[in-house]
Amino acid sequence: MLSAAKGVFIVAQTPFDETGAIDGNSIDSLCEFYFRHGADGLTVLGVSGEAGKLTSGEAVAVAARFIGNAGTRPVVVGVSSPSLAQLGELTTKVMDHGAAGVMIAPPAGLKTDEDLLAYFDAVYTRIGDVPTVLQDFPQASDVWMSVPAMLRLIDTFPQLQLIKEEDLPSLGKIGRLRESTGRRVPILTGNNAMYLPLELARGADGPMAGFSYPEMLSGVYRRHTAGDLDGAERLFARYLPLLRYEAMGSFGIAARKEVMRRRGAIRHATVRTPGPRLTPTDLAEIDRLVAQVDRSVADLT
Amino acid sequence: MLSAAKGVFIVAQTPFDETGAIDGNSIDSLCEFYFRHGADGLTVLGVSGEAGKLTSGEAVAVAARFIGNAGTRPVVVGVSSPSLAQLGELTTKVMDHGAAGVMIAPPAGLKTDEDLLAYFDAVYTRIGDVPTVLQDFPQASDVWMSVPAMLRLIDTFPQLQLIKEEDLPSLGKIGRLRESTGRRVPILTGNNAMYLPLELARGADGPMAGFSYPEMLSGVYRRHTAGDLDGAERLFARYLPLLRYEAMGSFGIAARKEVMRRRGAIRHATVRTPGPRLTPTDLAEIDRLVAQVDRSVADLT
Amino acid sequence: MLSAAKGVFIVAQTPFDETGAIDGNSIDSLCEFYFRHGADGLTVLGVSGEAGKLTSGEAVAVAARFIGNAGTRPVVVGVSSPSLAQLGELTTKVMDHGAAGVMIAPPAGLKTDEDLLAYFDAVYTRIGDVPTVLQDFPQASDVWMSVPAMLRLIDTFPQLQLIKEEDLPSLGKIGRLRESTGRRVPILTGNNAMYLPLELARGADGPMAGFSYPEMLSGVYRRHTAGDLDGAERLFARYLPLLRYEAMGSFGIAARKEVMRRRGAIRHATVRTPGPRLTPTDLAEIDRLVAQVDRSVADLT
Amino acid sequence: MLSAAKGVFIVAQTPFDETGAIDGNSIDSLCEFYFRHGADGLTVLGVSGEAGKLTSGEAVAVAARFIGNAGTRPVVVGVSSPSLAQLGELTTKVMDHGAAGVMIAPPAGLKTDEDLLAYFDAVYTRIGDVPTVLQDFPQASDVWMSVPAMLRLIDTFPQLQLIKEEDLPSLGKIGRLRESTGRRVPILTGNNAMYLPLELARGADGPMAGFSYPEMLSGVYRRHTAGDLDGAERLFARYLPLLRYEAMGSFGIAARKEVMRRRGAIRHATVRTPGPRLTPTDLAEIDRLVAQVDRSVADLT
Repeated sequence: MLSAAKGVFIVAQTPFDETGAIDGNSIDSLCEFYFRHGADGLTVLGVSGEAGKLTSGEAVAVAARFIGNAGTRPVVVGVSSPSLAQLGELTTKVMDHGAAGVMIAPPAGLKTDEDLLAYFDAVYTRIGDVPTVLQDFPQASDVWMSVPAMLRLIDTFPQLQLIKEEDLPSLGKIGRLRESTGRRVPILTGNNAMYLPLELARGADGPMAGFSYPEMLSGVYRRHTAGDLDGAERLFARYLPLLRYEAMGSFGIAARKEVMRRRGAIRHATVRTPGPRLTPTDLAEIDRLVAQVDRSVADLT
Repeated sequence: MLSAAKGVFIVAQTPFDETGAIDGNSIDSLCEFYFRHGADGLTVLGVSGEAGKLTSGEAVAVAARFIGNAGTRPVVVGVSSPSLAQLGELTTKVMDHGAAGVMIAPPAGLKTDEDLLAYFDAVYTRIGDVPTVLQDFPQASDVWMSVPAMLRLIDTFPQLQLIKEEDLPSLGKIGRLRESTGRRVPILTGNNAMYLPLELARGADGPMAGFSYPEMLSGVYRRHTAGDLDGAERLFARYLPLLRYEAMGSFGIAARKEVMRRRGAIRHATVRTPGPRLTPTDLAEIDRLVAQVDRSVADLT
Repeated sequence: MLSAAKGVFIVAQTPFDETGAIDGNSIDSLCEFYFRHGADGLTVLGVSGEAGKLTSGEAVAVAARFIGNAGTRPVVVGVSSPSLAQLGELTTKVMDHGAAGVMIAPPAGLKTDEDLLAYFDAVYTRIGDVPTVLQDFPQASDVWMSVPAMLRLIDTFPQLQLIKEEDLPSLGKIGRLRESTGRRVPILTGNNAMYLPLELARGADGPMAGFSYPEMLSGVYRRHTAGDLDGAERLFARYLPLLRYEAMGSFGIAARKEVMRRRGAIRHATVRTPGPRLTPTDLAEIDRLVAQVDRSVADLT
Repeated sequence: MLSAAKGVFIVAQTPFDETGAIDGNSIDSLCEFYFRHGADGLTVLGVSGEAGKLTSGEAVAVAARFIGNAGTRPVVVGVSSPSLAQLGELTTKVMDHGAAGVMIAPPAGLKTDEDLLAYFDAVYTRIGDVPTVLQDFPQASDVWMSVPAMLRLIDTFPQLQLIKEEDLPSLGKIGRLRESTGRRVPILTGNNAMYLPLELARGADGPMAGFSYPEMLSGVYRRHTAGDLDGAERLFARYLPLLRYEAMGSFGIAARKEVMRRRGAIRHATVRTPGPRLTPTDLAEIDRLVAQVDRSVADLT
């Protein structure tokens, strides 16, 4: 039940082999890696999962393989598309495969609160009663939702069961959403977890984010929920230099995949075209950053 | 009283001499030209008045000279600015010079209905009780206002006394604004008058637009208000080839100034830098278009 | 051979039945209508063909049906997509079905000349040697190409065989492209043909545009190429009031479909969701506009 | 000489009193604070200096007061404006007051490399031979400059003497700019210094950024230039949790001013309207963050 979700949802990378083809075996090992490091659920086919570079057939296959690995853990599938027809088709297929729900960021071109309501009305006319994560990520979607508009969406559409909040600054917005008296929906936070301990303190129910060290995400969350706020922040701070490095858009995704390859989570660090290629300078920089993080975390424990 | 305005507001060009300096004498002759061709009021320092290319001192001087020429006719002054401080300063000065009101298009960066309300709250905290034209021109301002948002603004801020409606398509929006049960505000239409007869039929109270043949604007308006809809549309259609030519952004402004120069309204067709320069090919094209319009209008009468 | 194309390419609507399903029979009648009124070729799955509302399977089926109707006439298929994988997949399929080439507008997010070159390099690495129409339509694509950048693309990629020029103002740009000394590529113009006679005079090789009266497009083109410039402009002017009406974005598409339904070209005027619904007021307005055009054209002949 | 600049340029806040008026005394104390903590120069009237909220008269007065405090240290003044006339007027005035140069981010609306060149040509036709910092900050300016375009600008305009590089990711771009064989210009980096040690390693000549603990900026720079890369990174990491907090747009500026008020640099934390107001929750959060930083830095030393 997404509407009761809390904990650590990892936003999964999509692994490709050296030719750029989907690497199914790496999906399997990646899932094992995520769950071993504390994932309570997964979110696949997000922006950082390079969903925009897949064919519609590949998208379904990737989602299905993740779902197959997740067992009883929930898998949310990103289905955002400028085409409502494609959104609808992908939704049907991934729900058939056992997704816990879909994630939708409204498409660029919606400009007003009224546009938003009309859009989701059209969405649910098409897809019906599918549990949905509302992704509030204007920096990527170019759709800006005020708190009143989001509350009206939640009030109007019972299918909206969870918010992925990554508007910046997220802190005040989480607070305002939490203060609302309407139906309570969980709030998970994104933005590469750059503000995770603060967001948890503001009332977020966990991260929905990706990072090459998912044990940081789960570690911060467990400490926070156990009441150890200082411990949560101390742990977080040790990873922050690498975290902010991975937050650099598609370059950050390439770096994250490289670190995950080194950690054995996936076999290849390939980012699909069009996308950055890491240079020797980049790789040396990553060497240093990873060594610093490892040292810094070792100091802590 | 802007709140009772109707008729023909001409959006005025700002005349420059061949060096790019303000040409005050041409402001005088331009006013004479506009009023002779049926202007009931003027709107100065709009986008097509090249307001964005003036210093703050020049802006005040230009507005004052237009106001001085207008006698008892109302002059609306565009004061939109990304800087609220500059907006406030210019507003105070032009109101002191006798402007009928100011025109404000909200600045880029406002994204939601809530942002809009907060912005105008800040505006009126600063400028107080100044009659205001709300310019709804998202193609230029990058701020998109739904009908409910506009009605809320009108309901909240009594200073908003007139709407310049130029969102595209304007037709349905005019209809919806007119159907509202709240305080009635006049709606004048822009978009270079490309849809004027249809907008009047939808309930608009007149044009607030620029054109090198302002007698078309007043002629269409007079015929329409006299009940001669067919006549209004026939007159309009004769000018439409030139009208759509002048609707081509800053190139269209350069063309408009050239036609107005030929008609004696201003002494120089100069568009301030940065802006287009007309080529011999452009000028020959304008020759043909003007000849066609003159012939076509002569046929009609 | 697109590289030698000239004449009238009609940008085709995609017909839907009253339920929103693809209406294959109307594709057949629509093709008959277009060819009867002078189409030399077709462009399908463009923006105004509602390509963004189709599933990938529907897109192929629609393209194939148009191609099947076109006989030896060339059919260009729009394949633009934020996903290079989807662009590639659709390209392969429609070329297998006999398309004359594909049309590509670069995806939003490309910001510099360098980005453009890198993008098309990635495109042709994937799709290989496929004849391509480069669509220069920044108002819709949010990608802005300077003349030097376009010439560099043409110089670099022999697959780019035709330009659909609809940046505004198009006139100077057509002139500059024509003056280039590199490989000559045909230039067809769009923007709902709002500037067609002027564009032909600047050196364009014909329209690639949609209109409910395609006989205007072919009539203007034939008169122009026969040297009857005045006749071309006179004919054009008669249709201009309706033309500018159909130029109002997705509302204009809905109006165009309604007029085409009345003319028997398609059985239903349905625009797929999300999209505008025509109100009784809109329909009455269309009645008047069509009657005016019919009268005005009858006068001419 | 900007063309030989290196070291620590602090991007200065503009202090306001509780009524929102310019607080001149706080400009004096702020300068003392910056220089005591290692500033080699200042940059005033930048985005984070709330330049967009000043009148043109206030802008000159603020710049003059900073310059008066700086003695022989260089002060760069941001003059970016959508209006070339206003840019020109402000440039003349602040150069008369003794600015070392001006900083210009090209205005929104420039879309292509060709547009960029034309814009700076118009700028230098107007302002003449004024030393200029080219600000590459597309996230704020919405103008995207490729490395080849920037090198062409530098090659064409000798007035461009320094680059403030804050496109993201900045790292590869700094490397590419450094590899160029043309005229060498210093590169200072912004983005709230979020990537400072890495940028220095890539060849940047120092930070041009703001932070409530300017001793971090100078400390990282001094360690780096002394060859102590590990020390630079260790120091940086201690401040990173607060640094990323202050990087949250205008909310971050409000937080920064609050921390600087507590540190005695300015008397009031006021952010001018429109702008955020810190809530009790925000203030408590800042308490914790500042305490953590202070503790963490104390540990290090």
